[in-house]
Amino acid sequence: MSTIAKVTTYDLRFPTSQTLSGSDAMNPDPDYSSAYVVLETSDGDCGYGFVFTIGRGNDVVVTAIDTIARKFIGKRVETYLDQMRLAWDECIHDSQLRWLGPEKGVVHMACGALLSALWDLKARRSRMPLWKLLSSMEPEELVSTLDFRYLTDALTPEEAVDILADKKASADARAHDLIQRGYPGYSTAAGWLGYSDEKMLSLIRSETREKGFQQIKLKVGQNLQDDIRRLSLARQEAGPDIRIAVDANQVWDVPQAIAWIKHLEKYDLAWVEEPTSPDDVLGHAAIQKAIHPLAVATGEQMQSRILYKQYLQAGAFQVMQIDATRVAGPQEIILEYLLAHKYGVRVCPHAGGVGLCEAVVQYAMLDYVSISGQMEDRMVEYVDNQHEYFLEPSRICHGRYQTPLNPGSGIQMNLALCEQYMYAQPRIRTSADDE
Amino acid sequence: MSTIAKVTTYDLRFPTSQTLSGSDAMNPDPDYSSAYVVLETSDGDCGYGFVFTIGRGNDVVVTAIDTIARKFIGKRVETYLDQMRLAWDECIHDSQLRWLGPEKGVVHMACGALLSALWDLKARRSRMPLWKLLSSMEPEELVSTLDFRYLTDALTPEEAVDILADKKASADARAHDLIQRGYPGYSTAAGWLGYSDEKMLSLIRSETREKGFQQIKLKVGQNLQDDIRRLSLARQEAGPDIRIAVDANQVWDVPQAIAWIKHLEKYDLAWVEEPTSPDDVLGHAAIQKAIHPLAVATGEQMQSRILYKQYLQAGAFQVMQIDATRVAGPQEIILEYLLAHKYGVRVCPHAGGVGLCEAVVQYAMLDYVSISGQMEDRMVEYVDNQHEYFLEPSRICHGRYQTPLNPGSGIQMNLALCEQYMYAQPRIRTSADDE
Repeated sequence: MSTIAKVTTYDLRFPTSQTLSGSDAMNPDPDYSSAYVVLETSDGDCGYGFVFTIGRGNDVVVTAIDTIARKFIGKRVETYLDQMRLAWDECIHDSQLRWLGPEKGVVHMACGALLSALWDLKARRSRMPLWKLLSSMEPEELVSTLDFRYLTDALTPEEAVDILADKKASADARAHDLIQRGYPGYSTAAGWLGYSDEKMLSLIRSETREKGFQQIKLKVGQNLQDDIRRLSLARQEAGPDIRIAVDANQVWDVPQAIAWIKHLEKYDLAWVEEPTSPDDVLGHAAIQKAIHPLAVATGEQMQSRILYKQYLQAGAFQVMQIDATRVAGPQEIILEYLLAHKYGVRVCPHAGGVGLCEAVVQYAMLDYVSISGQMEDRMVEYVDNQHEYFLEPSRICHGRYQTPLNPGSGIQMNLALCEQYMYAQPRIRTSADDE
Repeated sequence: MSTIAKVTTYDLRFPTSQTLSGSDAMNPDPDYSSAYVVLETSDGDCGYGFVFTIGRGNDVVVTAIDTIARKFIGKRVETYLDQMRLAWDECIHDSQLRWLGPEKGVVHMACGALLSALWDLKARRSRMPLWKLLSSMEPEELVSTLDFRYLTDALTPEEAVDILADKKASADARAHDLIQRGYPGYSTAAGWLGYSDEKMLSLIRSETREKGFQQIKLKVGQNLQDDIRRLSLARQEAGPDIRIAVDANQVWDVPQAIAWIKHLEKYDLAWVEEPTSPDDVLGHAAIQKAIHPLAVATGEQMQSRILYKQYLQAGAFQVMQIDATRVAGPQEIILEYLLAHKYGVRVCPHAGGVGLCEAVVQYAMLDYVSISGQMEDRMVEYVDNQHEYFLEPSRICHGRYQTPLNPGSGIQMNLALCEQYMYAQPRIRTSADDE
């Protein structure tokens, strides 16, 4: 028997605003950051989790993680690892904490970091990468960890078991295929709004011709004439076979989005991402209807499964973009994939921020092995940011993510390398009582 | 000229879980709490704001307020008071902080506390209660402080000016009427789930016969047979003329809500409050359609104007329940009232938590004077909790809120009385640079 002895949370901030990498119409100067948590047991085992942020307010997330960690300190590890639903309930159904959401924003993401750290520990102890652990669980066992509250009008536990059971027999073949071929990625490297036309074109060349990505993404939405010029140049450079997606990062109102997109349609777009507020289900439904057959994509800032459910019910997008640290960890992300599968929508995860590529690829692989069984119609975003700070950085080969094989969720950082980016002293919690 | 010199944030927690006051199907043991902020100028003027919470996590809100306060320290007060839209933009459109929402949860509420403190200061300097200050502004001036981002498919600034202008000529008469008659309240005092039948009935008697409330509200949703028994007893005690609303505090899924409510309909309910997750626009629309003509009511945990917009567009409720500290202060609450008026939905504000009655009545009064011009079809919730800690506690006479006449927003606390409820040392910020 071992107990949860210590939870340390780091406020890491990388000064990315200095290079305008990551700049878009809504986010002119992000400083890619992480509220990174290390959960230690009395045996000396560790589990790792994090929340990706873009700078200011990372301390608020650190405080939330530290506050919620009090629940777990001193408790028996196996109690949670053997019944992850209990860990979920203690975080998500804490009625006092729930008032601060419910199930959204800082507190929800902080719960996600801690639940992810527990799942990471469970995978490490199982000597399996997270995707493998999850896909090796029996359908009933995996579903028993999931919370269907507020979802049963769209998806029941029985349906979830059926979806997973349906893929079980052929799962090993797909796992083998994944290890052989990896999983498709796409590149956002060329697309930041702060880049000159020359830098954009040069990056499109290297990302597609040298690195082998079959899709790129450009940021739009700040100035229509700029968007038209950049898209025209990009299409010319990329040729007709490379898919080009655009991303407005929520800058438009609904009528404005529809009008603006009409001007960009002729460049044969793969999708239009985040045309407006991620909270506006009905607005996205109106935009999707107006720009059909062009696809709306969104999700990186979708607060919870309850929003995803409604997007699917309303036909408000054709591409669902889950994020690894926006919601409450593996248990919520799996529900999102199950919902998407039931409604026949493809999932192309958001990534790019500190650790997001490393984290999200685990779920994409689970989806291929155990949920949708599809891979070639979907892809995971890739940006070459801060990978060097991870012990097992994402590896891309010919535009495809290589399959992680080491135990855990692949997001352990090399803290010695991060020293200079520690914005404040880490918060160390070893007792439930101290403040 | 004066500057913003100091922002102090208090973590106040009242041990209300000991009495089960405030207990409902979702919140068995709330400790009514406040992240209370005092903003001081170099002249020694103060503005007051707060976020109401129910205990754990109040420290996270305090941290968020303290972090956001850095923006304002050392800045000229008049710069903000003369153009409150600037203060809004610096909080809400801080692109790095926005990542933590966007516009929801802890960070959004923290922005609301600071913006409320600035409006409180503006009202104090104007020597007017907040409702009077807002209603005395010219329609164009008030609308210029509001942010219509993500709303223009439902409400434009021009429509907002028209709504306010339409009421301008008759505003003084309604203000006079308000001062004479006060504003209708309703009582939730009898309804907590933790109370025995005897305690409930005795409180129904005193709240209606002695205190004069014309509507009461009971908590439901934990056990159907209990709900039926309690409602039957309550209806018998109250008689046919007292309105009885019920409140499920989000415990149901959509199909369950519809089935459960069918069993309660016969008790002639005023409304069914929070049948499911506040984030589920489509779920509420389905419930409202199924239980029509019985009204769905919700809003106390509605995260932003973007959700309210969709509820109105989808016909998902008939009663809108704004909250004073859930969103980003007066500027967002005014938008909610304007949207409700345009869509013909009545607003019955949520209150009851520490300071919520004191705070929200200001907006109800603004609505009567300048937006809807209606009062007798709507009412503000009232619970007799923690009023004694406020310098100007809500005053109820014959079931009606008396109109606040003192300068400011009426939420200044008597901190000397709160001493024993200070959960941690206050956070004092006097410089933008310190951590």
